Amino acid sequence: MSKQELVVLGQDTADGCCPTLLTAPLDEETATDLAKVFKALGDPVRLRLLSMIASRDGGEICVCDLTPDFELSQPTISHHLKLLKQAGLIDSERRGTWVYYRLLPAATDRLAAVLTRPGVPAEPAPAAS
Amino acid sequence: MSKQELVVLGQDTADGCCPTLLTAPLDEETATDLAKVFKALGDPVRLRLLSMIASRDGGEICVCDLTPDFELSQPTISHHLKLLKQAGLIDSERRGTWVYYRLLPAATDRLAAVLTRPGVPAEPAPAAS
Repeated sequence: MSKQELVVLGQDTADGCCPTLLTAPLDEETATDLAKVFKALGDPVRLRLLSMIASRDGGEICVCDLTPDFELSQPTISHHLKLLKQAGLIDSERRGTWVYYRLLPAATDRLAAVLTRPGVPAEPAPAAS
Repeated sequence: MSKQELVVLGQDTADGCCPTLLTAPLDEETATDLAKVFKALGDPVRLRLLSMIASRDGGEICVCDLTPDFELSQPTISHHLKLLKQAGLIDSERRGTWVYYRLLPAATDRLAAVLTRPGVPAEPAPAAS
């Protein structure tokens, strides 16, 4: 396969074209890569954790503020956070006693892009004021 | 919980607000619902099948045109298609010998919407012509 045939889904190509999961068959490598990230999102606890991290004012949240919302042990929460991190969806930083988590928006941006139909912006239009 | 507190992610609310996975913590019910769809996408074969169905000219594809691209048995392909269908991502219709599949774009639109950051349209801008 020549380099010119390679297209990275979810990123603009040189000619500004915008292939998505919905406009062209995926190659095996891209499918394997994307499936890992979707699999990380395929669990309600991880989705809730990601939404808590992503929506936090200030952009990051202490693991100590995540755990109380779940009837799960801290090791279980930490395991789910590890899977989100391995999928490239979040990053973490230890400061003192606690670990702090933040969203890596490039990962969710990529998924949003590959799921967006051409000509159908995913973002709802704001209400007229 | 009052009805007014319920928000369906990925759909416009009455006031035109646009909550996403990235702007507000998910409730358990919504997280469970979304996780099922993400889980269906968390497999490379299913992602490839979905992309083949979605990108097909004419909007639908015969299962007989899907199977040859995989080194998998037809029952295995059919199982993956069943999981995509159960997740609400595709629909199917039997006509004569074969089953035909088509995308249900409302499902992918919803996922794209909940993954889109406010103010950051997921759809890449078309190139200037």
